[in-house]
Amino acid sequence: MTFPVVGMVGGGQLARMTHEAGIPLGIRFKLLSDSPQDSAAQVVSDVVIGDYRDLETLRAFARGCDVITFDHEHVPMEHLRALEADGIPVRPGPDALVHAQDKGVMRAKLDEIGAPSPRHRIVSDPDDVTAFADEVGGFPVILKTVRGGYDGKGVWFVRTPEDAAAPFKAGVPVLAEEKVEYVRELAANIVRSPHGQAVAYPVVESVQVDGVCDTVIAPAPNLSEALAGEAQALALRIAKELDVTGHLAVELFETTDGRILVNELAMRPHNSGHWTQDGAVTSQFANHVRAVLDLPLGDPRPRARWTVMANVLGGDYPDMYAAYLHCMAHDPQLKIHMYGKDVKHGRKVGHVNTYGDDLDDVLERARHAAGYLRGTITA
Amino acid sequence: MTFPVVGMVGGGQLARMTHEAGIPLGIRFKLLSDSPQDSAAQVVSDVVIGDYRDLETLRAFARGCDVITFDHEHVPMEHLRALEADGIPVRPGPDALVHAQDKGVMRAKLDEIGAPSPRHRIVSDPDDVTAFADEVGGFPVILKTVRGGYDGKGVWFVRTPEDAAAPFKAGVPVLAEEKVEYVRELAANIVRSPHGQAVAYPVVESVQVDGVCDTVIAPAPNLSEALAGEAQALALRIAKELDVTGHLAVELFETTDGRILVNELAMRPHNSGHWTQDGAVTSQFANHVRAVLDLPLGDPRPRARWTVMANVLGGDYPDMYAAYLHCMAHDPQLKIHMYGKDVKHGRKVGHVNTYGDDLDDVLERARHAAGYLRGTITA
Repeated sequence: MTFPVVGMVGGGQLARMTHEAGIPLGIRFKLLSDSPQDSAAQVVSDVVIGDYRDLETLRAFARGCDVITFDHEHVPMEHLRALEADGIPVRPGPDALVHAQDKGVMRAKLDEIGAPSPRHRIVSDPDDVTAFADEVGGFPVILKTVRGGYDGKGVWFVRTPEDAAAPFKAGVPVLAEEKVEYVRELAANIVRSPHGQAVAYPVVESVQVDGVCDTVIAPAPNLSEALAGEAQALALRIAKELDVTGHLAVELFETTDGRILVNELAMRPHNSGHWTQDGAVTSQFANHVRAVLDLPLGDPRPRARWTVMANVLGGDYPDMYAAYLHCMAHDPQLKIHMYGKDVKHGRKVGHVNTYGDDLDDVLERARHAAGYLRGTITA
Repeated sequence: MTFPVVGMVGGGQLARMTHEAGIPLGIRFKLLSDSPQDSAAQVVSDVVIGDYRDLETLRAFARGCDVITFDHEHVPMEHLRALEADGIPVRPGPDALVHAQDKGVMRAKLDEIGAPSPRHRIVSDPDDVTAFADEVGGFPVILKTVRGGYDGKGVWFVRTPEDAAAPFKAGVPVLAEEKVEYVRELAANIVRSPHGQAVAYPVVESVQVDGVCDTVIAPAPNLSEALAGEAQALALRIAKELDVTGHLAVELFETTDGRILVNELAMRPHNSGHWTQDGAVTSQFANHVRAVLDLPLGDPRPRARWTVMANVLGGDYPDMYAAYLHCMAHDPQLKIHMYGKDVKHGRKVGHVNTYGDDLDDVLERARHAAGYLRGTITA
């Protein structure tokens, strides 16, 4: 059968779960991974081990792929342009992906299209940070390296002028953002295909602990229909204006004065969309595959009143198998998603999804399982 | 992480879908397949290409597996015993699996435990068939080779004494069964683990066309609670008495006089359970993996009022991709499961699942998609 080949660059859990979603679609999945031990490389048949920073490796990988997509945003921009010049469809394309690679470019573009952001500007040194703080009402402010950050890395919460030195040490441009007064974080996840079809998932609440996503609640509780619609429309507009193809996560602040502001963009399946595996008609992973192949998209609607995702972080015990068995016995409805990774303290090694009609119960089940697997709950 | 390795013998679509279900469980999946083009071999990382009829191939494959299970029932009994003697857990074990390999052994055992069957006996030649027909009220009768049949192969509907010669040509013992007057076929699917935990899925109706499963409706419409409970209890009892581990499908006739009779047994994930992928909290594939690892089983309850599975058979066109795209556009809620197989006329190359509150609508959507993919419906 002449079904197409999707090549994915990066062997993390997002690629693992994209492959899982691609199996029923009958697509051929090809992986470029750093190591055969990578999360996705453990489960994919067609794996090339190589360095995505090397153009010839990328080119050799791309031969025989009908489209290239990504598990992460780190492929150098010039390589993406070279692949496109070779005639390989790259989705999302470099002109879109640059906004997920570079927070400075992202902020400038969001300003240009009138998308609401925290006040911000590129700062040149600690004195400039102090000047920025004065402009936005004083410290604290947020500093971010424009490239390379994730899960709280590359982000500094700066309380005093003295704190402002560290971010400049990396030699990367630094973006300053006002510290927004927000009641919670939201995420608007949408998927868009090259011919312009797009679907919007329900807006979710994302609960962060120490800068890392801990829990996602779908849909976001007590979110007004107006603000939910505004968030979805904003994400769809950003996708269109930036010509994003595939999955786009727009991480948002819901401010104390009832506005939404864009925090971050991710152009790939995203942690805030993992709930869709068990909670939506079509998962973000399946829709990402459909989108990059320009296939019609699947229904994004929820299958349950509430779905909760809780990340499983590594704890003190390297072997989770006994805890995993316990969790299955404790809750036969629990949906466990393990990534095949070695346990390291604080590392995301899996997640769980729960769903049902009673939010308190659904939250409690997800948090119990995630805590038990981590080892912070023992009964 | 020290998660176990499940070795599956056979590279068909059941292995493909078992691997898919094993990915989120974090288990390592190892496959013994005839060819790298096999349905499962296309998507599994750890594949051994070899012949399951060769003991040394099986032994080499089993090294490094924590348990061996099966995509089909054709592994020679003596090889299974040799693996067990080597200390490899084989699930289901040979003492159970023999009942799925040999219809004569199956019928004798079901008689012994008092499970209701069509009247039957092993017949030795065409004259003996006529004698059997006289015992059960005349022709037609059903003849089956005790080994090697599937999807209508190895089964003869015998109307006259002259028809009775063909089945004896294979040189395999032949089982005669009365032609049962039935209103429909049902299937009771259960999963049982080595420590004896078991779960029962809702009893389904299986609609056969030309001896091949066409459509499965979950739950079976208008089935009395009493008969549904009887079918589930019967399947659980058979699993216990035969010491089945993993998934067991009990195919049943619902007779015109309101009884259920056992037609066939299958000890592996089964076509009548494919609806569980999108219609149940835990799929038959996930529960089969959990069972063979002796992990606690997942909830078998349905997630929708009605779920329908329709098999996609090969038609006249070798390339289904355009039809597949059409089906996605036509019904964004459709769940497509393709097996990566070349299209041959009448070959099962995939299935679709639909679910919802209105059975007529759910049936129509499934049949439309399956027919459109096959090419028998063009609008």
